Amino acid sequence: MISAAYVGDRTMRIEDVVPAPPAPGQVQIRVAYVGICGTDLHIVHGAMDARVSLPAVIGHEMSGVVHEVGEGVADWAVGDRVTVMPLDWDDTCPACLAGHRHICHNLDFVGIDSPGAMQGLWNVRADLLLALPESLRLDHAALVEPVAVAVHDVRRGAVRPGDRVVVLGGGPIGVLIAVVARETGAEVTVVEPDAGRRATVESLGLATVDPRADDVVTRIEGWTDGAGADVVLEVSGAPSAVLSATALAKVRGTVVVVAIHPQPTAVDLKQVFWRELTIVGARVYERADFERAVELLDRGVVPAEALITEVRPLTDVAAAFTTLEQGDAMKILLDCGAGAQ
Amino acid sequence: MISAAYVGDRTMRIEDVVPAPPAPGQVQIRVAYVGICGTDLHIVHGAMDARVSLPAVIGHEMSGVVHEVGEGVADWAVGDRVTVMPLDWDDTCPACLAGHRHICHNLDFVGIDSPGAMQGLWNVRADLLLALPESLRLDHAALVEPVAVAVHDVRRGAVRPGDRVVVLGGGPIGVLIAVVARETGAEVTVVEPDAGRRATVESLGLATVDPRADDVVTRIEGWTDGAGADVVLEVSGAPSAVLSATALAKVRGTVVVVAIHPQPTAVDLKQVFWRELTIVGARVYERADFERAVELLDRGVVPAEALITEVRPLTDVAAAFTTLEQGDAMKILLDCGAGAQ
Repeated sequence: MISAAYVGDRTMRIEDVVPAPPAPGQVQIRVAYVGICGTDLHIVHGAMDARVSLPAVIGHEMSGVVHEVGEGVADWAVGDRVTVMPLDWDDTCPACLAGHRHICHNLDFVGIDSPGAMQGLWNVRADLLLALPESLRLDHAALVEPVAVAVHDVRRGAVRPGDRVVVLGGGPIGVLIAVVARETGAEVTVVEPDAGRRATVESLGLATVDPRADDVVTRIEGWTDGAGADVVLEVSGAPSAVLSATALAKVRGTVVVVAIHPQPTAVDLKQVFWRELTIVGARVYERADFERAVELLDRGVVPAEALITEVRPLTDVAAAFTTLEQGDAMKILLDCGAGAQ
Repeated sequence: MISAAYVGDRTMRIEDVVPAPPAPGQVQIRVAYVGICGTDLHIVHGAMDARVSLPAVIGHEMSGVVHEVGEGVADWAVGDRVTVMPLDWDDTCPACLAGHRHICHNLDFVGIDSPGAMQGLWNVRADLLLALPESLRLDHAALVEPVAVAVHDVRRGAVRPGDRVVVLGGGPIGVLIAVVARETGAEVTVVEPDAGRRATVESLGLATVDPRADDVVTRIEGWTDGAGADVVLEVSGAPSAVLSATALAKVRGTVVVVAIHPQPTAVDLKQVFWRELTIVGARVYERADFERAVELLDRGVVPAEALITEVRPLTDVAAAFTTLEQGDAMKILLDCGAGAQ
């Protein structure tokens, strides 16, 4: 079978390997589609070399069909259409014992810390699988993981019907957050400097602000009758957006930190104090978020067609990464072969 | 009567003025004791010149006795022992309408934005008063306001019985927060570099860590069996403490921003994301906090004797500020004359 591995030196290499059979407790999935995530790009850029073991078969946004079940697996059968929630916790650390297993102290993020989905056949522990409804296309189902991120972020922000929500950053996760927040009953404005991304956001019926052309604080104050936004989600990773977030939130409003800021970043703590703001971190998802993501995609709430910029064969993986790093694509899927089944 | 006013140029001036009678709806209080707050020190240092109108009679931590009631005041009588919750909101801004009047967009903080308690007779709107129990000494009652701050901070941190709580900074507010958190049922450790302040904290039976001698993260990890603190309260105002706060909090733990950080400050947002931390701002107090502060002082939970370093006559106000800025005192009270009544 074909597999795509990061081998260091900004290089993804296609290899033809003999697949291993599923171990006891594992399911072997014939992979249909794998989405490329910003994290995958970070890995290939070498930013996570201290964490990944080379060669690293990456990929954690996927859909597929059960091909074989290992010994002792009772819940899955050949032909089942599935996706994978790529979190493997230890169930013994203080976070797990407190009920926060998705952010286990020793979390194994499958596709980063252990082998991922960019291969024809993928062996995964059976309890990480979720069933896909027959009505959900497998290409669309490759978006379940990023949609689950958005569901989790909106839930962490405690977004409620009628809230006025600002999303800072109109990339794939920002758009998904905006869509999920709107589905929750909120009014949403997306702040995004890139004209192409703004056009995509607007094509989905969402309001946008160009922070290079407009004073965002003035715009949001006008929109909210001087109150400020109920919830601001920082998805851009830009230091300026972090300062903007606290300026946009209302008294007792919430700022959700979605983007990864690798270095300590200037935060207007005086504003946090003055307005009694709440800042919450949001990382990955819990099982309920994944289940809701499947449901939102199946109901057509998520505009999968608008977000999937292109689908390429797995053998094109290097070119796909190049397209993505040029910033022109929203979401690129790699076709791993099982999509036609 | 005597009044003490900040007149600019780092100067507090004592004046002999003719008192005005209470206006309709006001109560005239014969002031007993006024505590000097860090904010008062900031004012005298000129840091708040843009906000105060000169000459400014400051002071907002106080106790006193009703001397005269203005027209239309039915709830108070001459001789009532009282304190003042020094917040005057507009009841019309978005924060007030949302139920957060204590952080009104146009809040008048009495003693900063309008005349305060450093005078023999003080006219205050009747609805800002709270009754003091007969059993509570008037000098101790001058601590109600800072205790209410601590009650509010602990409530904003949602401290629960059994929690392990770290307080960064062992000044007056830090000590009060530690005491209130302990009363709530938490175990508390106070991090404080100053040996004298650590000694005061330890004399109250509270654990301390010297961040200059010990690795605080290692100490707190050991204390919490590797989990991290449930709640960290940042009371020091030191930028290094802000970075420390996120390092000390457990997965899904809470950091309360109590200190004022005038400039944007580096926060480890990656840690906020990674551990799904919550950072909350806490400013002033609500009526319920003030009522609980009265109760805690009356029950002797707050070690008023240990915290009140000295009591000086109002005419010594300049010297009292000098002592305070040398950092040797916890809380200095000014005796305004009604204490013997």
